[in-house]
Amino acid sequence: MTLNHTHDPAARSWLESANAEGSDFPIQNLPFGVFRRRGTNEAFRGGVAIGDQVIDLAAVARAGAVSGLAAQAASAAAQPALNELLAMGPAAWSALRHALFDALQAGATGPGVDALRASLVPQSAVEHTVPTRIGDYTDFYTSIHHARNVGRVIRPDNPLTPNFQWIPIAYHGRASSVVISGTPFHRPKGQAMAPGAQAPVYGPCRRLDYELEMGFYVGPGNALGQPIPIGEAEQHIFGMCLLNDWSARDHQFWEMDPLGPFLGKNFCTTVSPWIVTMEALAPYRVPFAHPADEPQPLPYLDSPANSAQGGVDVQLEVVLQSAKHRAQGHGGDRLSATSFSHQYWTIAQMLTQHTNNGCNLQPGDLLGTGTISGPTYEEAGAIVELSLGGTQQIPLPATGETRTFLEDGDTVVLRGWCEKPGAARIGFGESRGEVLPAVGGA
Amino acid sequence: MTLNHTHDPAARSWLESANAEGSDFPIQNLPFGVFRRRGTNEAFRGGVAIGDQVIDLAAVARAGAVSGLAAQAASAAAQPALNELLAMGPAAWSALRHALFDALQAGATGPGVDALRASLVPQSAVEHTVPTRIGDYTDFYTSIHHARNVGRVIRPDNPLTPNFQWIPIAYHGRASSVVISGTPFHRPKGQAMAPGAQAPVYGPCRRLDYELEMGFYVGPGNALGQPIPIGEAEQHIFGMCLLNDWSARDHQFWEMDPLGPFLGKNFCTTVSPWIVTMEALAPYRVPFAHPADEPQPLPYLDSPANSAQGGVDVQLEVVLQSAKHRAQGHGGDRLSATSFSHQYWTIAQMLTQHTNNGCNLQPGDLLGTGTISGPTYEEAGAIVELSLGGTQQIPLPATGETRTFLEDGDTVVLRGWCEKPGAARIGFGESRGEVLPAVGGA
Repeated sequence: MTLNHTHDPAARSWLESANAEGSDFPIQNLPFGVFRRRGTNEAFRGGVAIGDQVIDLAAVARAGAVSGLAAQAASAAAQPALNELLAMGPAAWSALRHALFDALQAGATGPGVDALRASLVPQSAVEHTVPTRIGDYTDFYTSIHHARNVGRVIRPDNPLTPNFQWIPIAYHGRASSVVISGTPFHRPKGQAMAPGAQAPVYGPCRRLDYELEMGFYVGPGNALGQPIPIGEAEQHIFGMCLLNDWSARDHQFWEMDPLGPFLGKNFCTTVSPWIVTMEALAPYRVPFAHPADEPQPLPYLDSPANSAQGGVDVQLEVVLQSAKHRAQGHGGDRLSATSFSHQYWTIAQMLTQHTNNGCNLQPGDLLGTGTISGPTYEEAGAIVELSLGGTQQIPLPATGETRTFLEDGDTVVLRGWCEKPGAARIGFGESRGEVLPAVGGA
Repeated sequence: MTLNHTHDPAARSWLESANAEGSDFPIQNLPFGVFRRRGTNEAFRGGVAIGDQVIDLAAVARAGAVSGLAAQAASAAAQPALNELLAMGPAAWSALRHALFDALQAGATGPGVDALRASLVPQSAVEHTVPTRIGDYTDFYTSIHHARNVGRVIRPDNPLTPNFQWIPIAYHGRASSVVISGTPFHRPKGQAMAPGAQAPVYGPCRRLDYELEMGFYVGPGNALGQPIPIGEAEQHIFGMCLLNDWSARDHQFWEMDPLGPFLGKNFCTTVSPWIVTMEALAPYRVPFAHPADEPQPLPYLDSPANSAQGGVDVQLEVVLQSAKHRAQGHGGDRLSATSFSHQYWTIAQMLTQHTNNGCNLQPGDLLGTGTISGPTYEEAGAIVELSLGGTQQIPLPATGETRTFLEDGDTVVLRGWCEKPGAARIGFGESRGEVLPAVGGA
């Protein structure tokens, strides 16, 4: 995707909060979500973040604040889920972005600008829901560093399975338990087999983990039996979010041979409220290549555009805020930080792989990237990696506590942003979730 | 569930085709599906099979042919998907069954009977669609005979994984590619690694298989975080169908370590049109027990009712009709036959296991049982078992052909029925699907 005037780092908005240093939501971002005023019974509807406000797309559509294809897109987004908007495809997404950008720019005037201004709702006054009706949720496994780190815990002799460097590996996850940031969940119960035990025990998870991931939402999608070629894959990706694939490691490792993770994962998956569009991410695309001495992608997973700019350089961090942090008014300790650019497969390759057998993707489907771990220890995207399988205590300097796995009352916060010289900084907001005690106790 | 007058094997209908010897749909069955007149643009709506006819539940609701809770249930079923009906729970399901039974009985008269008679549409004139909007589709793995047969192909030393006898194992499947019986599909392409090869090859599947399964549909379901105890599980199961979990074995075996089956399965799953309700199946419930020298279910998977009548004795068969069979006007050769009563875990145990960590099930969700193979070779539910991993030719006596895996033009038909002395025979109809050549050829 080529850059255009909506990426101009010098652009400013008449909304002052959008111009604040370090804001996640400057005029160059314009991410989409679904919201309503908190504490009301209003219908959820699409919105776009700008500074500390939300543009109400239902109000924009009613007021006729934008016109043409942008107006059609705003009407499609005025629903309780963004599926209709996502089905419209890149031309409509871009038309709406450009219309909003133009109306938000410093100096813009006219009835459309007034109507847009009248639609604003403070972000502090809204609540969000999952932004699409997710037909199917798929989770990939595309960080070679994560695969090696976890593989060492499960299979010390052979941490990386032979298919990893050939296939963007994935499994189907649970759509019904995808929740919006801020939703707490109960520590899951389940079966675990202790080392050397004769029989498994059913009880609360003892090795509760998070996974730092990104998610991406499907646009138009494909009919059953009709694969999406790699060259067309990005036309079917609306945008990206933060995703926490909470994991019960004791349950997962006991259940997953031979059919993969199931109850160890499907109790909760948390997504961030805002979807940052692929157009907003255009300045942060980076070249992609497998190391020359490793297998190269098969032709159906390879394209010049994918090599030239298949990657996305998103900075990511994981923060743990314990109950003690909260009691002290402290935001929590950072556990790790990395970049999405280290991933072994691109999002285009993931989408094409998913359809290469004819499997149909539908508008609003959610695909997760798998845990994002960078090449060094400090960049690990899950606590099982940081604690070396639970054998090492991880310090939380601000409270003096330590962790091997998550404890009740812990909140895990994922954050993501893009910044570099010559481009506007844009952010993803955050994905946040608190661990509540198991239902019915131990 | 106790038996009542709707199970009386002596009951007869004024609709003669319902009384025919060997009919799948006598007055004691009354399975639910979604249909419209074939070749029209009519809205799909709920229907009930009786003899060679379909009761149009939208017409029944409009005409007020039934009353009270049964009328509410008929209205809920008058939609293009049965989700609303399934959400109502067993009292509503039973009220509608009983009202239809009473109006269909030989000798029944009155305006309701006339309205019901006027609603009938010949089964030969209708087409079906998947009967619910499936939020999530889960597939279990609960035949110990299948697990051992397939395990011998993959892991000769240790065919059964240690968790099999403790956990009803499952994985998430793909909801978007569940299709209705009669829908053909293209042979999938994908990656496969030949034995001894240095690199995988992308191409049409060379080891295409079917899997004989049953499916069951979720009723009211549970909120996230709130497991369904085993004693309540069957209140959340509406009924059962036939399910074919088509499998690309070469793709599956290359991709599935460590995260399980994905593209090897998600290109197509075929369900039969009719859902036979748990009330209709009541005469065919059978005791359930693990062998005394094998692990017994953990307490959360155990209940007196589950032991007394957790099983369901459904007779099942698989028929392969090749293009040559069709050209000869032959229905095909039977590949195997078995009973669902051999399964190692019950449907109540599967449902409770699925929610034991708090995972939420929603009305209309589909759960598959996994391949159903009985204890002998002749009872194997997949061709990879019958052909011993593709090493043995399976004869098709009627045409003189042989098979190791499925060929283009092959149609696989699953059938199921229940019969025993002292109870009415009831049937599931069939699940049928034809393999088309790969898109774009080899």
